[in-house]
Amino acid sequence: MPELRKDPIVGRWVIISTDRAKRPTDFAREKNQIKGGFCPFCYGNEAKTPPEIMAYRPSNNGGPVAPRDTPGWTVRVVPNKFPALGIEGSLNRQADGMFDKMNGIGAHEVIIETPDHTASLEQLPEKRIEDVLWAFRDRIIDLRKDRRFKYILIFKNHGEAAGASLEHTHSQLIALPILPKYVVEELEGAKQYFIYKERCVFCDIVRQESEVGTRVVAENPDFLTIAPYAPRFPFETWVLPKRHESSFENSSSAMFENLAKAVKTLLTKADLVLDNPAYNLVLHTSPLQDPQNDHYHWHIEFMPKLTKTAGFEWGTGFYINPTPPEEAARFLREANVSLTQPIALR
Amino acid sequence: MPELRKDPIVGRWVIISTDRAKRPTDFAREKNQIKGGFCPFCYGNEAKTPPEIMAYRPSNNGGPVAPRDTPGWTVRVVPNKFPALGIEGSLNRQADGMFDKMNGIGAHEVIIETPDHTASLEQLPEKRIEDVLWAFRDRIIDLRKDRRFKYILIFKNHGEAAGASLEHTHSQLIALPILPKYVVEELEGAKQYFIYKERCVFCDIVRQESEVGTRVVAENPDFLTIAPYAPRFPFETWVLPKRHESSFENSSSAMFENLAKAVKTLLTKADLVLDNPAYNLVLHTSPLQDPQNDHYHWHIEFMPKLTKTAGFEWGTGFYINPTPPEEAARFLREANVSLTQPIALR
Repeated sequence: MPELRKDPIVGRWVIISTDRAKRPTDFAREKNQIKGGFCPFCYGNEAKTPPEIMAYRPSNNGGPVAPRDTPGWTVRVVPNKFPALGIEGSLNRQADGMFDKMNGIGAHEVIIETPDHTASLEQLPEKRIEDVLWAFRDRIIDLRKDRRFKYILIFKNHGEAAGASLEHTHSQLIALPILPKYVVEELEGAKQYFIYKERCVFCDIVRQESEVGTRVVAENPDFLTIAPYAPRFPFETWVLPKRHESSFENSSSAMFENLAKAVKTLLTKADLVLDNPAYNLVLHTSPLQDPQNDHYHWHIEFMPKLTKTAGFEWGTGFYINPTPPEEAARFLREANVSLTQPIALR
Repeated sequence: MPELRKDPIVGRWVIISTDRAKRPTDFAREKNQIKGGFCPFCYGNEAKTPPEIMAYRPSNNGGPVAPRDTPGWTVRVVPNKFPALGIEGSLNRQADGMFDKMNGIGAHEVIIETPDHTASLEQLPEKRIEDVLWAFRDRIIDLRKDRRFKYILIFKNHGEAAGASLEHTHSQLIALPILPKYVVEELEGAKQYFIYKERCVFCDIVRQESEVGTRVVAENPDFLTIAPYAPRFPFETWVLPKRHESSFENSSSAMFENLAKAVKTLLTKADLVLDNPAYNLVLHTSPLQDPQNDHYHWHIEFMPKLTKTAGFEWGTGFYINPTPPEEAARFLREANVSLTQPIALR
């Protein structure tokens, strides 16, 4: 069972993998080198993952649907074979001398976005990207029934530099028994803003950025894609719903089509401008127990890995960004990508 | 002039380099590849750095000391040629629509630790490492006279994976016009602990860890080196003064010798156990305007780069650490390194 431990100074929890502890020799220099050869996410290898949690299996011309753990799926969700958290047990919070710990309870799932080994998420047809987003929602709605979980983070590591260890395109979901630090900071900051202004800070950002235009990357009827005003990383980009929505999973079904378009547009532009960068994508949404509120507004954060985080950043939490967001937005905005439907650009 | 911008949601300041903005093509894939060939930090190339701020130049048998910006130094401090912050001007805090910004005022210096191009810090004799630590202190004491500065971070990036761009061993210093986020979190956490317990949390850690022993890496009369209870990274290690000292620069002169030993011991052990890892080292000390207090305790944090920070960590601030600190400490503790004086190990 992994262990959650709390730093006694800043109160930051960390997950300590006690089961398969990595020894010094396990940290090979090229540890994140993506393995070629056998792929457990391809058709025919379904038995090499833990049994599937869910999958979308379209019926073939009204014929029978393929059975579980066999080919025929378009999106497939499985437990992570090497989970960061264990699904069984209770938290059992306790002291450890002057320190605090609890059991590492949670869920860790992999969303295999397509059976196509060579495609990237952005190369999929819009409808298929939409299916991936629906799978995110379905998993959150299922997992939120488990009252041990306080938060679900969905994220994607693409490319070796972003921490991916398998090439076949996939996202991950981790359900957590606590609210993670950055989410608490966003929630509290947004709440303070709401108390002071009686408006959602994200709604204000959407309105101002849409008017100013210099940091806009793309826009469609439901989503605004911008370079944020104070980004940590060069070419960091956020996708924000234009209408206030505190939780992703409770959003209107009607928006999924435009979210798929917004994601495809952003990633395709980034591929063009930054030459297929490694990247992390994270979905920030409200806590499971507080899905509907006035102050928080779900969104997607896109962080291409173009620079290395170094001592200054690790020591201060203060980031040096060599690319002003206005420049980044301009490059991304001007990158000409054509999807099925044209994207409204400034 | 670089710009400091504040994220309106979490209140995090970032430094935006507006002067020499990096365009997409500047992020070459191997951008952090350390350049070989010409080295501005070697003897004879003093004119290739900005004019030196200070240097230690030992007199040769009572003979004349070499003039500034010429060879003959053992430690040399120069302004960073590409500073993250500008030294001239005032903060000029102002609104930018709904956002907040100020001028990027600060100091950014490079401490060249030795004229020897091929040595690493840990390979220097203890006395030379002590000189580097004295240079840190001298620079802090000089810069704290400038009342625009609130905090000074000294840090070291060693190796390409840790963000170093020059091979010749060096540290860096950045003087900041604000208290950085992580420092505020440590200060506030330590203050809360002090209010509750009427004791310094770091002093409590030193006492408990010294008694328990399982997370101790090394110890000498003035310093305890430990793997912290809830480390973010595998083999993260802290060096803590055993006696309460809130600020590095006001520490007793008598401790510098043992600090040099502690740093040399830790880095030499890490080289042995982790096969010369890339690493970041940061010095956390009290704010310049509050150097003497009961709750904060300066220390050094050592973070070898063995894993990649990925979407989960960037999205949550919650770290998955694959190596329990007890394991990491055992490997480092048992690594047999002999310095001039033997180190007391458990």
